[in-house]
Amino acid sequence: MEDIEIECVADAEIGDPVLVEGLPGVGHVGKLAAEHLLEECDSQLVRRVYATDFPPQVNVDEDGVADLVCAEFHAIETEGADLLVLTGDHQASSNEGHYRLTDAFLDIAEEFGCERAFALGGVPTGELVEEYTVLGAVSDAELRGELEDAGVEFRPDEPAGGIVGVSGLLLGLGKRRGIEATCLMGETSGYLVDPKSARAVLEVLEAALEFELGYEQLEDRAEEMEEVVGKIREMQEGGSGIPDDELRYIG
Amino acid sequence: MEDIEIECVADAEIGDPVLVEGLPGVGHVGKLAAEHLLEECDSQLVRRVYATDFPPQVNVDEDGVADLVCAEFHAIETEGADLLVLTGDHQASSNEGHYRLTDAFLDIAEEFGCERAFALGGVPTGELVEEYTVLGAVSDAELRGELEDAGVEFRPDEPAGGIVGVSGLLLGLGKRRGIEATCLMGETSGYLVDPKSARAVLEVLEAALEFELGYEQLEDRAEEMEEVVGKIREMQEGGSGIPDDELRYIG
Amino acid sequence: MEDIEIECVADAEIGDPVLVEGLPGVGHVGKLAAEHLLEECDSQLVRRVYATDFPPQVNVDEDGVADLVCAEFHAIETEGADLLVLTGDHQASSNEGHYRLTDAFLDIAEEFGCERAFALGGVPTGELVEEYTVLGAVSDAELRGELEDAGVEFRPDEPAGGIVGVSGLLLGLGKRRGIEATCLMGETSGYLVDPKSARAVLEVLEAALEFELGYEQLEDRAEEMEEVVGKIREMQEGGSGIPDDELRYIG
Amino acid sequence: MEDIEIECVADAEIGDPVLVEGLPGVGHVGKLAAEHLLEECDSQLVRRVYATDFPPQVNVDEDGVADLVCAEFHAIETEGADLLVLTGDHQASSNEGHYRLTDAFLDIAEEFGCERAFALGGVPTGELVEEYTVLGAVSDAELRGELEDAGVEFRPDEPAGGIVGVSGLLLGLGKRRGIEATCLMGETSGYLVDPKSARAVLEVLEAALEFELGYEQLEDRAEEMEEVVGKIREMQEGGSGIPDDELRYIG
Repeated sequence: MEDIEIECVADAEIGDPVLVEGLPGVGHVGKLAAEHLLEECDSQLVRRVYATDFPPQVNVDEDGVADLVCAEFHAIETEGADLLVLTGDHQASSNEGHYRLTDAFLDIAEEFGCERAFALGGVPTGELVEEYTVLGAVSDAELRGELEDAGVEFRPDEPAGGIVGVSGLLLGLGKRRGIEATCLMGETSGYLVDPKSARAVLEVLEAALEFELGYEQLEDRAEEMEEVVGKIREMQEGGSGIPDDELRYIG
Repeated sequence: MEDIEIECVADAEIGDPVLVEGLPGVGHVGKLAAEHLLEECDSQLVRRVYATDFPPQVNVDEDGVADLVCAEFHAIETEGADLLVLTGDHQASSNEGHYRLTDAFLDIAEEFGCERAFALGGVPTGELVEEYTVLGAVSDAELRGELEDAGVEFRPDEPAGGIVGVSGLLLGLGKRRGIEATCLMGETSGYLVDPKSARAVLEVLEAALEFELGYEQLEDRAEEMEEVVGKIREMQEGGSGIPDDELRYIG
Repeated sequence: MEDIEIECVADAEIGDPVLVEGLPGVGHVGKLAAEHLLEECDSQLVRRVYATDFPPQVNVDEDGVADLVCAEFHAIETEGADLLVLTGDHQASSNEGHYRLTDAFLDIAEEFGCERAFALGGVPTGELVEEYTVLGAVSDAELRGELEDAGVEFRPDEPAGGIVGVSGLLLGLGKRRGIEATCLMGETSGYLVDPKSARAVLEVLEAALEFELGYEQLEDRAEEMEEVVGKIREMQEGGSGIPDDELRYIG
Repeated sequence: MEDIEIECVADAEIGDPVLVEGLPGVGHVGKLAAEHLLEECDSQLVRRVYATDFPPQVNVDEDGVADLVCAEFHAIETEGADLLVLTGDHQASSNEGHYRLTDAFLDIAEEFGCERAFALGGVPTGELVEEYTVLGAVSDAELRGELEDAGVEFRPDEPAGGIVGVSGLLLGLGKRRGIEATCLMGETSGYLVDPKSARAVLEVLEAALEFELGYEQLEDRAEEMEEVVGKIREMQEGGSGIPDDELRYIG
């Protein structure tokens, strides 16, 4: 097997789609958002990407059938822009692997004619979030205007630690290929899977790309999480005096 | 030395053999099972596989003679299907290495004409096992029927963490080559070497491939382990109140 | 993307420049010194070096614009020798990467005609430093004379652990290319970012290369650190009995 | 720089030399033994081996001159067999690197016409050693006889964990090239640098290769260690009740 193998599952009739990436990361915000797009819209699986830098693993489905771990591209047509959605269960396991994978992802995006990309993710605040601000970063300052109109906040030199992983490289390597790339980071505690943060990110995407989504499924997941969050609040306020960093061990 | 070097030790007159893999893993179930096949049947060493991804190590035999660590293929003729048994002392030490090794193993299997593969292993239950169920996963749903007849259980989306290592990749990469691959996972505590689980797995293999084995040697090893298990039970029931996860430190 | 990619940003009219390296390390001495050179002198960005061995990361600037992490070369003309200053936020993340990166750095240096190189860094003393001695190491014994005149100390077999990372390899690999390479190591506690040590190193560089620098900005940073150091001294002398190695956790 | 670079320092007039390897390992037995050979005999540096798998490091000599870490081959003529002595300060830092390095070492050995190799090292006993037995392992059972005559012990399947690192691979890879390879392992506590164990190993080498060594320098080092050992014994016998594994933290 090559370091990376791209399997062509189907071709899609989508016009100048926008690449939307949502791989695992802080609060699983990006992954939740991308998967919600696939659940809410008619989507077509077009490519699978296998990589020796992914874990040596198969996942077993409801029928007991095993499939090699991979990243997937789905094509979605919306009333606004068409989307090419990248999601999966794994990031690369080495620095070099992250660069190699992101290059392969960008090759596929260019093959489909993508000139714009949105990397979806979360940014950790260290405490439970009341208002779900979406932080932005762009490959080109000219992209800021329409995003700020959509409610995205830009803070100088934030996130302080930079943006790491495939999301970061989509901006860094995409920029070098002339792709207009944006990273949308939903604020999230960093301790919990955060469907509300995912929704905040998707609402920005709706505004920027002029399409509309339902949110019932994300709301269901959000309610499940609310119960967990409720318990945490009790522990904190109920004088149980759990230091904040105890939270790191929850959820 | 190349990343992988295959040493041709002998050729074997076996017809369309079935690949049977048993490398180290949970409860050493797969390795115990594969080694028992070599002890119980007339087997012929046909290939050695050396890899720079194995530990930089030689093992010393009873005569003080050192040999480079490797994986081995043995050919076995049975009254049912012929077998090509893969075993050894090591898995690869990197993600990439697992993919590279499994590809090499499948090349050898195809060279011998294998169209079917069984990956043998264990699945951890976290507690001492009373009834040795064998869990299954397949590369193709059509393979389920005869396995269920042989007593294999298929549970949706299990094992939850997927199947990792060479066993997993034999299904994942084998499937992409058109090999019918099955993973048989004997339930085992995960704390102990488990000859009984190995026997449960082998009994499924006997039924599926229509041959018969003796089990004296595995029974001897099982009796040794019974004593250990007995002590553990005492500790647990004898009010010593050892929490289950203490078990992780035993055996 | 290749393992290493060199972006030509501009060409510079500098004559036989001296390579000056200051990447992150002990007390950030080298990085502080190199960045101070860029702040105090008119400098021109001439090359960017991207590497798959750097973290898979973009950094976000004051405008929210993201750029791929890289190392940078700036050209500086002084009244003395011209300088080619190498700085950045990261070392390589693997042994092989360090060798590969340093080779690329030396290729660029040779392209600009560098025949001399200074690697700037810190050497940890394990305790707060009163007098900022600069320790030296050279690729050729003949380089010692002028450095000793500039106040550099040479101690047999020191630093005991050798010199690690890009600084060390600039000497080791540079020597093999016939480049006269010197490592200037400012003594520093090893617990704190140390602008004073950076200044001590730069003052040697001024003397050796016959140019002059202002130090206002480094002095400002030094004053900030003085407050931290003051607190530490109190803790130590104030009978709070903090063992020295507690310091490891400060700053 | 290539993964491995071999620098030809000098050619040597040695006839069919025996390769003798002593790199860092348990108790530094092999390294002490090889360095003692270089101190006691007239030796000539013939090759240096640089590798990107070594630490990215230079060492500084008594004159403040820095040199890239490497492994070295020295040629020695004795009244018995001529020797090609391999020593250095580092093993490889990855599995693959160990294989690559050992292959390069064997290439050099074959270039000098070596048909025999001795890998020198230590085997940990876990307790202070009274009698310095030397354990042996060979690439071919026929090599045992003369070694047993020289006092080497062969124990079935020992060392239990196999022989790891360059020493192990010299046997494993050397055997595949038709080189008669022997590993001599001096028993040593595993907690301390052990000159006495190094001497025990060298005395076997003297007998096997029919040459003679002085031991003054090793005796001096042994006396230094004796003092440390004395203190340890006091601690153990003096009822201080230090559990044996405390020893792991000494020396």
